[in-house]
Amino acid sequence: MNLESLREATRKQMPDKRWKHTLGVVETAIKLAKRFDGDPVKSELAALLHDYSKAWAIDRMEAIIREQRLSMDLLVYDKELWHAHVGAWAVQDEHGITDEEVLDAIRYHTSGRENMTKLDKIVCLADYIEPGRDYPGVSKIRELAKHSVEEALIAAFDSTIEVLIERGKRIFPLTVLARNDLIGQLKQSNNKIANGG
Amino acid sequence: MNLESLREATRKQMPDKRWKHTLGVVETAIKLAKRFDGDPVKSELAALLHDYSKAWAIDRMEAIIREQRLSMDLLVYDKELWHAHVGAWAVQDEHGITDEEVLDAIRYHTSGRENMTKLDKIVCLADYIEPGRDYPGVSKIRELAKHSVEEALIAAFDSTIEVLIERGKRIFPLTVLARNDLIGQLKQSNNKIANGG
Repeated sequence: MNLESLREATRKQMPDKRWKHTLGVVETAIKLAKRFDGDPVKSELAALLHDYSKAWAIDRMEAIIREQRLSMDLLVYDKELWHAHVGAWAVQDEHGITDEEVLDAIRYHTSGRENMTKLDKIVCLADYIEPGRDYPGVSKIRELAKHSVEEALIAAFDSTIEVLIERGKRIFPLTVLARNDLIGQLKQSNNKIANGG
Repeated sequence: MNLESLREATRKQMPDKRWKHTLGVVETAIKLAKRFDGDPVKSELAALLHDYSKAWAIDRMEAIIREQRLSMDLLVYDKELWHAHVGAWAVQDEHGITDEEVLDAIRYHTSGRENMTKLDKIVCLADYIEPGRDYPGVSKIRELAKHSVEEALIAAFDSTIEVLIERGKRIFPLTVLARNDLIGQLKQSNNKIANGG
């Protein structure tokens, strides 16, 4: 399936507002890939598909999570997280996408995870800062994204954790592990710089 | 060993300021045990011993964690957490405390954990709100502690997570799991009340 028909199929899964967001994430992911030496082709594909199942009915997502045994842990956490795992399954099932790197970037674009690949980071960050996004702290995250994908992602995850605390909602442990891991990566790379590369 | 000599041995492990804090935690833990139908005797013992190793040298704690293989995960997280696990080991080793409930309350008094026992909750919360504590948000936590140990603990963990975010430090995943679990417990008990008990 070529990119054009994949675009068309993806557009059909969601209302116009979500599609506009998707185009923003595609544009931003390509920019970030070029800025941080990522893969622009995979970034475009993963960004295009990242919200494939976002507008699907909750019941449909729950049924898929159960039937496909995607990750039963998901069911106790915020429904916000379901579409990412369901989407990774759906684009494989419906469009034969088998690139595990691309599927992982879709699967973990909302929560993050430990040992995020560069593609994971690019898609996740693009989702936080695409031009249509407007929330407290987004301009700081955009600013950080000019020089460090890790620093920007840490700030993005922090903003998510703070919102969940404010709302008295559960915090997805993967997001905390992702954040902790990124802090460790930054420390290591700062140590390398301090020690002369 | 009787309580009096245990008090004396504990006092010797720490400077006066920490001892004063310990006495505050003991007093508060007994109050909370009475308020929330806990065990005042175990609460007093666990509170007395909760910071047994807090003032020990970092090297000594690290050596014990490694030699006793306490929990290697600990070593990558904040040193703040070490004394709780080392303390649980030390009071067993030095004073023959074998009550697993008491040892767990010492072990998890800083991080919390999933499925906290009532004793875990009492000691952890007492540590957050003893009369000597003074930090942003403590009065709100004390207020919540008048009627719900779970609501107070969630607010306490939230304050810890927020401070760690502010300082760019790693968040201990157990604390997030503890907080998520308490939110689930509250939801369940609210549902029970809504359904007539």
